Amino acid sequence: MLKKNIVLTGFGSVGREFIRLLKEKSEMIKQNYNLELRLVAVGGRDGFISSEEGLNLHILSESELGSQSLSDYAHNLRIPLTSSYVNADVLVEATPTDVGSGEPGFSNMITAFHNRMDVVAISKGALVAHYDTVFEVAKANKARLKYSAATAAALPTKDIGEISLAGSEIVGIEGILNGTTNYILTCMQEEDLSFEEALRTAQQKGIAETNPDLDVKGIDSACKILLLANDLLGTRYLLEDLSIQGIDAITKEQMAECKRRGSKFKLLAKALKRDGKVHINIAPTEISSGHMLFGVDGTNKGIVFQTDTMGAVCAIGGSSSPRGAAAAALKDVINLYRDHEFN
Amino acid sequence: MLKKNIVLTGFGSVGREFIRLLKEKSEMIKQNYNLELRLVAVGGRDGFISSEEGLNLHILSESELGSQSLSDYAHNLRIPLTSSYVNADVLVEATPTDVGSGEPGFSNMITAFHNRMDVVAISKGALVAHYDTVFEVAKANKARLKYSAATAAALPTKDIGEISLAGSEIVGIEGILNGTTNYILTCMQEEDLSFEEALRTAQQKGIAETNPDLDVKGIDSACKILLLANDLLGTRYLLEDLSIQGIDAITKEQMAECKRRGSKFKLLAKALKRDGKVHINIAPTEISSGHMLFGVDGTNKGIVFQTDTMGAVCAIGGSSSPRGAAAAALKDVINLYRDHEFN
Repeated sequence: MLKKNIVLTGFGSVGREFIRLLKEKSEMIKQNYNLELRLVAVGGRDGFISSEEGLNLHILSESELGSQSLSDYAHNLRIPLTSSYVNADVLVEATPTDVGSGEPGFSNMITAFHNRMDVVAISKGALVAHYDTVFEVAKANKARLKYSAATAAALPTKDIGEISLAGSEIVGIEGILNGTTNYILTCMQEEDLSFEEALRTAQQKGIAETNPDLDVKGIDSACKILLLANDLLGTRYLLEDLSIQGIDAITKEQMAECKRRGSKFKLLAKALKRDGKVHINIAPTEISSGHMLFGVDGTNKGIVFQTDTMGAVCAIGGSSSPRGAAAAALKDVINLYRDHEFN
Repeated sequence: MLKKNIVLTGFGSVGREFIRLLKEKSEMIKQNYNLELRLVAVGGRDGFISSEEGLNLHILSESELGSQSLSDYAHNLRIPLTSSYVNADVLVEATPTDVGSGEPGFSNMITAFHNRMDVVAISKGALVAHYDTVFEVAKANKARLKYSAATAAALPTKDIGEISLAGSEIVGIEGILNGTTNYILTCMQEEDLSFEEALRTAQQKGIAETNPDLDVKGIDSACKILLLANDLLGTRYLLEDLSIQGIDAITKEQMAECKRRGSKFKLLAKALKRDGKVHINIAPTEISSGHMLFGVDGTNKGIVFQTDTMGAVCAIGGSSSPRGAAAAALKDVINLYRDHEFN
C-alpha cells in the first residue's frame, strides 16, 4: 500500500474540514485506492505542529478554527511549534486567498516544490497572481500541482475540461462560479429584495462574508474563470486583463423587469474563443429558460463547456461549503496517488 | 513522443466517425498530449484490413458504412482481407451491441486482451452480458479497459464518478441516459402526440431506429445504469436482476395530466443505495421543476450523483450523435496514453 504524508497550511474552516475528512475517510481510502494518507504537519500564523507518526486527527477535528488551536495543540502535547516541517509528500494549501500578493500561499507552495513535494491548492491567490511562476517552479522540481478546490471546489470544472473533454476543442466556457452572488441574485429575484437587503440576508445566514467585496464585485468569479482559461484555453491572463463587473449595481427595478420577461440575472463568467483570441468577461447577464444554467439557483454553481465534437457539456451542483471544498482537495490528493491498477 | 497503434472493430456510423476524428485531430493530439495515434487495422464481417504503417484515413473517412467498404478498400489497395491483425496497442470495439450474447464484441475484446492490448469499448453488449469475465481476462493480461462511450458517450458519467467524486461516497445515481426516448417524451409532451406518433416522428428524423425496442423498452438505459452501478457502486448485477419499464405504455391522457401539474415524464434510470443494498430501476417517472434534470429535453441526456461530501453533482448534455460517441472513445484512448507530465 502506498503511504503518503500530508502537510496542511491554514487552519480555517476548509482546513479543519479537510482534517475531519481524513479522519472519517482514511479506512475507505485504504480500501478503495490502496492508499494510506497521514497528516504529518499543520501550519498556521505562528508556525507548524508536526509529527512523523501523524498528528492526532481527533483533537484537531474538534478544535476551534485558527492558529491559536495549533499553539494549544503544541502546548498540550508538549511538542514545539516549528518554522518548518518534517519530510512529506504533498502540501495542501488552505490559507486565506489574497489575490494581490498571492501570499502566504505562494511562499508555502514554492517551499513545497523546492522540497520536491506535490501541491494541492485550495487557496486561489498564488495561482491568480503568479500563475507562470508557480508552474515553472513545480516543473523544475518535477512536482505536480492540482487545484480543483480553487476552481469551484466540489463542482467539477477542471476534471471535465481536462479528462472528460480530452481530444475535444473547448471553444467556450460559461459559468455561474460563485455561490454567494448566486444566492443574493436568487433572493433579489424571488423575494423582490434590493441588493443591500439580499446581501444582508446572505450575511445573516453566513453565506456572505462581512466584507463581501471579493464575491459581489465579481473578483472570486474572475479568479476561477481565469484559472480555467489559463489551464484549458491556453491563455496567460492576469486579473487586470479581464473585464469584471459585479452584481452590486443591479437595481430592484432592473430585477423586476427581468422577472417580467421570465428571465433571470446570473453573474456569468465567460471565456470565449473568437478570432483567434480568448475573450473573458464577468458580468451580470440576463438568461432565459432555454439556457443550461437557468435552473442553477441559490448557492448552487454551474458551468457549460462548448466543444467542437461533444456539443455542450454542463455540470451543476457540488456542495458550496467548507466540506465540499475540503472534499475537492481530498479528491485531488487521491487522484495524485491512487493505484489505478487496484480498483 | 509515445506512438500507439489502434485496431478498430466495426465500421458503422460510430466507427467511421472515430476514423474521421483520428484524421482531423491527429496533429492536435500530438501537440497537446505528446501522443501519436495510428490506425493499423479495421475489422468487419469479412475480415480485417491492416497496415503497419497506418491505413489511409482519408479513404476510410469517405467510404460508405459497412463491411463492404473494407472489402473494397482491400481490393482497391491490393491488400488481403485477413482473419487477424498486426500487432497493436489498443482495440476500439465498435460493433453493434447484442445484450444477449455480447457478441461479436466479447470475442473481439477477449482476443485483444490475450494479445496484451488495452480496450476502449463503444459497444455495450460484452460488458453487460459478461462483466466479470471481461474484467478478469483484462486483469490477467495486465490490460486496461475503458468504456465511456458505452455509458452515455459524450455525457461524462464514469469520469465524474471515478475522478471528480474520488473519496466521496456515491449514495445514488439517477439519469436520463437515452436520448431517443427523451426525444420521444419531449415530443409527446410539447406537441400532444401519442407514443406511436412521437415514435414515428423520431424515426423520420433518424433519431429512433426502425426497430426501436432497445431504446423505448428501456433496455439501453438499463445497460448504462447497470454498467455505472457495477463500476461505481460495487454491484455485480446482470440485466435480469433489474426492474425495467419502457415508455411505450404512456398514454396521451397520462401525459396531458402530467403537463397540467407542470411536471414532465422522464425515463429515469436509478441506482440507489438503501439498507446496504443497491436498488436499480428504470421507469418513466414524473418529475417537477425543482428536479436537476427537469430542463433536460429533446435528445439531451443528464445524470445526477448524490454524494456524502460533495452534495449533488449533475452533468447534462454531450452530443447524442455518432460524432459524440466517437469523441468519447477518442477521449478514452487519449486518457490511456496521454503524457501527464507534458501538459
